[in-house]
Amino acid sequence: MTAPPRPTHIDTMRERNLALVLQEIARRQPVTRARLAELTGLTKTTVTGQVAALEGLRLVTSGGPVREGARGRPGAPVSLAPGPVAGLGLEVNGHYLAACVLDLTGGVRLSETYACDNRGRDARDTLAALAALARQMITRSTEAGLAVVGTAVALPGVIAEDRVNAPNLGWDSVPAAALLDDALPVQTIGLTVDNEANLGALGERWYGVGRGAGSYIYLSGEIGIGAGIVVDGELFRSAHGSAGELGHVVVDPDGPACRCGGAGCLEQVAGLDAVLRAAGVSDTSGTSESRLSELLRRLADGDHDALRAVDAAGRGLAVALVGAVNLLDPDTIILGGLLARLAFWLIPPIEGAVIRGGGKLRGRTPVLRASTLEAGSAVRGAAGTVLAAVLADPLSVA
Amino acid sequence: MTAPPRPTHIDTMRERNLALVLQEIARRQPVTRARLAELTGLTKTTVTGQVAALEGLRLVTSGGPVREGARGRPGAPVSLAPGPVAGLGLEVNGHYLAACVLDLTGGVRLSETYACDNRGRDARDTLAALAALARQMITRSTEAGLAVVGTAVALPGVIAEDRVNAPNLGWDSVPAAALLDDALPVQTIGLTVDNEANLGALGERWYGVGRGAGSYIYLSGEIGIGAGIVVDGELFRSAHGSAGELGHVVVDPDGPACRCGGAGCLEQVAGLDAVLRAAGVSDTSGTSESRLSELLRRLADGDHDALRAVDAAGRGLAVALVGAVNLLDPDTIILGGLLARLAFWLIPPIEGAVIRGGGKLRGRTPVLRASTLEAGSAVRGAAGTVLAAVLADPLSVA
Repeated sequence: MTAPPRPTHIDTMRERNLALVLQEIARRQPVTRARLAELTGLTKTTVTGQVAALEGLRLVTSGGPVREGARGRPGAPVSLAPGPVAGLGLEVNGHYLAACVLDLTGGVRLSETYACDNRGRDARDTLAALAALARQMITRSTEAGLAVVGTAVALPGVIAEDRVNAPNLGWDSVPAAALLDDALPVQTIGLTVDNEANLGALGERWYGVGRGAGSYIYLSGEIGIGAGIVVDGELFRSAHGSAGELGHVVVDPDGPACRCGGAGCLEQVAGLDAVLRAAGVSDTSGTSESRLSELLRRLADGDHDALRAVDAAGRGLAVALVGAVNLLDPDTIILGGLLARLAFWLIPPIEGAVIRGGGKLRGRTPVLRASTLEAGSAVRGAAGTVLAAVLADPLSVA
Repeated sequence: MTAPPRPTHIDTMRERNLALVLQEIARRQPVTRARLAELTGLTKTTVTGQVAALEGLRLVTSGGPVREGARGRPGAPVSLAPGPVAGLGLEVNGHYLAACVLDLTGGVRLSETYACDNRGRDARDTLAALAALARQMITRSTEAGLAVVGTAVALPGVIAEDRVNAPNLGWDSVPAAALLDDALPVQTIGLTVDNEANLGALGERWYGVGRGAGSYIYLSGEIGIGAGIVVDGELFRSAHGSAGELGHVVVDPDGPACRCGGAGCLEQVAGLDAVLRAAGVSDTSGTSESRLSELLRRLADGDHDALRAVDAAGRGLAVALVGAVNLLDPDTIILGGLLARLAFWLIPPIEGAVIRGGGKLRGRTPVLRASTLEAGSAVRGAAGTVLAAVLADPLSVA
């Protein structure tokens, strides 16, 4: 969480200030050099030099003169360059592979989702398919005049020491980053892997309903239920990367045993398989997507079993979220992934419980929102982490 | 959680390096200037100048020459000065007021605990008594050649916008910091208030069983049950300061209503009042301390009701902690306050549940420890925050 202290030398100072200027441009664009000097506290000469360096790196671009505020001074405004620098996001989930390419402004330049069943499929086969998709995206990016400088991959599992455990995919200690890295062309910033709930939370922060929410819990629901936790705009990462396992919070102390070793876990009442089973949508021959569509149709028809199953899921989510709210004190709870599609039925029971539980102590209740990025949160967040790495260290693309 | 970026100027750089040298001295003392230059990456000339400045501030002291490691070069070692700079920690809890004075090395120079019932007593009266204790400690410190540069106060409540809500004390929106500040002599660093579980967690990190544990949850148990959460050595503070309310995690979804507005909260089975009531130690005429002693006596005698009450508390704590472990992924769980005194009976049921719940996913189980600082964790952590402020900004004592 905190880096060890390091000495500040002149070179470090220049690099820090270069990143500072780039970050201010990202925050305020379009913005003049004069305004950048005011915002950063650096001299105009320094800012002009830094902007020239950033233009040389093709990270920013200067447009024509604009008038600024009341002072009316004309100045050449600077903005982030919508190319060539771009980031590639990839995602493996139970029932799809996805990829998207964002330019430095956050614009979606390419996006693909392939429905396929990755549950129980050999991890190497899944990763080979993902690498093929990634190479295709990189080629198409090059054709569009973009340069993919880095790749980030969203995976539905726990990543520890570069190995991925993803029980819902049947992955046990898979060296996913190394396997993918070997199958992709060398990139300036390289390749990272992260938990899909973490990346989904970042996707919401940068491009979704998390914009402006300081502290929130993003719920990613598919077979399992994970959470990405953002505190004051920063992703909360635990020491070992296994935080946010909301699906294994106990919601029924007398409940049945769970595959995690515990009993009465949230996943057993609010995971997709559990909800479909309780709703009687148990035809396992269908894809997850078709079974979910069937569930949504029955809910819309007022089917008793479907409504009861989703109500039980909502009550389970409420117990787990009351605990999470008391422990983490967020402003907002965002229902993502498949839970976003059930939001109409899930939000009322959760909201009631969260408003009551502990509300008198805090004097404030988190707001519930449904993601509008839906399945796209994690893959967009993944691509966004590449852009964030560029903003943090502009020289990384040199 | 993160400060906005600021430009680095030469003055800022010098100040940062001064703090860096002081922090390295704190970590490695006694340490020579030559070793400090190696450790920090600064030149020997710069280090010598910085050490002279720190000596001028009376924060460090040079001893006689020592031989260092294999290289055998003699050098004058530098250490933190065990005076005059000192920090004052204060604590209000349900059944006592406490104070302690630590010098910059963390040595306990003065320590006092007064048993008194602060529940339902007027907040202004309690704070007046605390201020009297504080003034007495400051006077005694001066007599001992110490200069108290700042004060921190541990309170069993939620602190928001300088107002304290502490339901278990009957405090509602009490401006504790302002009231105390008016009643104490002006100090260089000033006065801060914080939640006692947060400060207890820091006390354990600096002086207790949290030393060396990277990420842990510290449980502070008295009437209520709070948690201080440390991640990678840093206290986890939520946006609004209400994190760690473990006492209001739901452990029995069908349980009775709680004063927080929710139902089935941990506090209702594992809070002191609940445990004493369930154990049949219900003579409210006794102090909390005498009633706890009676409970401990009955437990040692194998009293059926007492054992059953503490077992129920252990099972409730287990449900809440399995949830907290899945959300926060700590290395260690520390039972503090009154829970530390029940640790012999509480640890086995908690340990079993925490090992099972989610353990298969994480592949690792947090260790359970009982605090050995007992009621002293929060007040020592409070004094420690003053010292941490000095280490972070040595010029604050100028």
